[in-house]
Amino acid sequence: MEKVNVGFIGLGCRGGGLMGTIIDFYDVNITAVCDKYEDRVEEKSEFVKEKKGVLPFGTTDYREVLAREDVDAVIIATDWELHIPIAVDAMRAGKAVALEVGGAYSTEDCFDLVKTWEDTKVPFMFLENCCYNREELLATAMVRRGMLGKIVHCHGAYAHDLRGEVTHGKENRHYRLRNYLGRNCENYPTHELGPIAKVLDINRGNRMVSLVSVASGSFGLERYVNDNKDTINPELIGAKFMQGDIVNTIITCAGGETITLRLDTTLPRFYNREFTVHGTKGLYEQSANTVFFDGDPEKYWISADYIKENINNADKYAYLLPPAWQNITKEMLDSGHGGMDYLELRDFIDRLKNGDDMPIDVYDAASWMCISCLSEQSIREGGAPVGIPDFTNGEWKNRHSLDVYDLL
Amino acid sequence: MEKVNVGFIGLGCRGGGLMGTIIDFYDVNITAVCDKYEDRVEEKSEFVKEKKGVLPFGTTDYREVLAREDVDAVIIATDWELHIPIAVDAMRAGKAVALEVGGAYSTEDCFDLVKTWEDTKVPFMFLENCCYNREELLATAMVRRGMLGKIVHCHGAYAHDLRGEVTHGKENRHYRLRNYLGRNCENYPTHELGPIAKVLDINRGNRMVSLVSVASGSFGLERYVNDNKDTINPELIGAKFMQGDIVNTIITCAGGETITLRLDTTLPRFYNREFTVHGTKGLYEQSANTVFFDGDPEKYWISADYIKENINNADKYAYLLPPAWQNITKEMLDSGHGGMDYLELRDFIDRLKNGDDMPIDVYDAASWMCISCLSEQSIREGGAPVGIPDFTNGEWKNRHSLDVYDLL
Repeated sequence: MEKVNVGFIGLGCRGGGLMGTIIDFYDVNITAVCDKYEDRVEEKSEFVKEKKGVLPFGTTDYREVLAREDVDAVIIATDWELHIPIAVDAMRAGKAVALEVGGAYSTEDCFDLVKTWEDTKVPFMFLENCCYNREELLATAMVRRGMLGKIVHCHGAYAHDLRGEVTHGKENRHYRLRNYLGRNCENYPTHELGPIAKVLDINRGNRMVSLVSVASGSFGLERYVNDNKDTINPELIGAKFMQGDIVNTIITCAGGETITLRLDTTLPRFYNREFTVHGTKGLYEQSANTVFFDGDPEKYWISADYIKENINNADKYAYLLPPAWQNITKEMLDSGHGGMDYLELRDFIDRLKNGDDMPIDVYDAASWMCISCLSEQSIREGGAPVGIPDFTNGEWKNRHSLDVYDLL
Repeated sequence: MEKVNVGFIGLGCRGGGLMGTIIDFYDVNITAVCDKYEDRVEEKSEFVKEKKGVLPFGTTDYREVLAREDVDAVIIATDWELHIPIAVDAMRAGKAVALEVGGAYSTEDCFDLVKTWEDTKVPFMFLENCCYNREELLATAMVRRGMLGKIVHCHGAYAHDLRGEVTHGKENRHYRLRNYLGRNCENYPTHELGPIAKVLDINRGNRMVSLVSVASGSFGLERYVNDNKDTINPELIGAKFMQGDIVNTIITCAGGETITLRLDTTLPRFYNREFTVHGTKGLYEQSANTVFFDGDPEKYWISADYIKENINNADKYAYLLPPAWQNITKEMLDSGHGGMDYLELRDFIDRLKNGDDMPIDVYDAASWMCISCLSEQSIREGGAPVGIPDFTNGEWKNRHSLDVYDLL
């Protein structure tokens, strides 16, 4: 396979972003584009024609994309509800799948994803771009070298003010809106959980066993709507949102490790993922890109002083980063989310062409995505512990560690 | 009452620290000292004589302190197990009580504390010094002015590497050791929970309703003992510690707010309390002493950049601090934990002399201390939700907000 023919299913903000990154790849053609909204199909068809000189096939029915011989792989970036059904249909049609992230609505869906892959063995990758991000890889490289000791606890957050994105415009077509109106859960766990699962070798020697989730009340969006009556979708005035502003989840792993996740998207704040790795020999905190090793002087009483003197001290260890980050160019950094979009798509295409195993596979996708529906259950049951299925059917004990890059 | 005669019960590291602060008060005599270890009684008797010129009464039996007419108030800083029994006996003996912090071993003990105070109405204050700390008061002042909107979520940690303190010496007399060997819970919740409970008006218009707690495995102390075999108490070599390294707790409040607490004391790290207050109009984070208000430019993709540019930006609002902090002197700052020990003891003595209500009372003590035994239950039950008693017997709805200082 010298060139990969790619079909895009889902052409909203995220699909468009991924297209903008991959369209410059020398070894990728975009042969088909699909969205349920006709205007997006037209717009992206024009975009591809301008950039590549060839008008792609355009449709509002994703099955037409899957039926085409000039499509080797599909990139799925639809609303969250359709992620798994389309990925399953794509694998059944023999199309390699790159699936954008999101949470699942049932564990049955997640099992369906896994079974379909096991039946078809079609290449499948879950596009968790944060697994390719610089800080996460730097900390993971420290872990692989044993610099942080036995890892005991990891923390992460999706702390991103989405009030505007959820509610914007007179005709809101954002799938997030209906989730915030009618659902209460950790609805977007993978940006922080993905890199943590890599660190902890989840599904590869370790697994997530159970979780508890607790949600705060819902106050942020209601206030936001009330404060922006003039510009907001008028249907939202007076609406009640079911989604709690803050959802905290604690996951327990087979190795005794714990993971905490916080969804934090409907109150004012600055962006943060708070990727934190804490072991018997040290601590890495992404918030200040700070690392502390056992024996370092602990002279600071309040951490603001520590952070002030040590912010970005982890950059001393930048030599541990894999070549993809050592050799990154300005174009790659500028092509989406500070480089990680380029790297994840480049890795997907390279592995597809070489027939290599995908480093973020269906077992990862299923176990990370199921946190959403399991957290929904736990919240509904007052924070009760809920078991996390073993999608590997016991194989997690035999599967070897696999990072997105070789970090040793 | 012109001078207050104080008896000290518990003369270990913390009792000694509090004595070192209060001994310079012009209006305090130290008339009695007590500890179960004779050497501490002798040492502190000498200390008081040197500083004040009068040898205090010394004993290993706290009941002898409570029986004395020349004792108006006792400061209790014993092992955690004896905090409540001695406080109860002291109130029954008519002695005002200042009780050092710690967690409770049963909710029954906490109810006993409350009932005893309700029977006797003896002045009682819980010595949660962090309620008097600068950053916590600055953020609370913002809350009282409505600058952060409706508060939805608060977070805090007791993140303090205590491995040395827990295991030190050949003859370890530290009460923490037996707790780490034989107990698994959020064993020290109040440094972070106290200021949070103040912000959220717990027991004064709001209350904590339930919690879940999950502990990681115990890895840190075992490794520490193994790495320090030459200096460690030899009895600890090969010991198994029951206390998980990291305990995460999520508390739900009557007003829909959530609180997260993390105990983090047996892995290498720098000190942090992570006091965080998040509302519909803004966010305060103690870790970088940073405040973010709705509408502030959110141009930062990764928070390290935000923190780098905004560290200590909350100091712009230092004019909101109460006079106690506006007028603080170097002597006060140097007299224990960066000023807060001076302020809490000064406030206790002032209120005792003036007959004012104590701002951290038995209801606060009971509801904050009970988190320890309730978290123990939740952890034992796999993270199951556990109800938090209403120690006010319904009065929380009628009791008015009371901060340690007037913040408006």
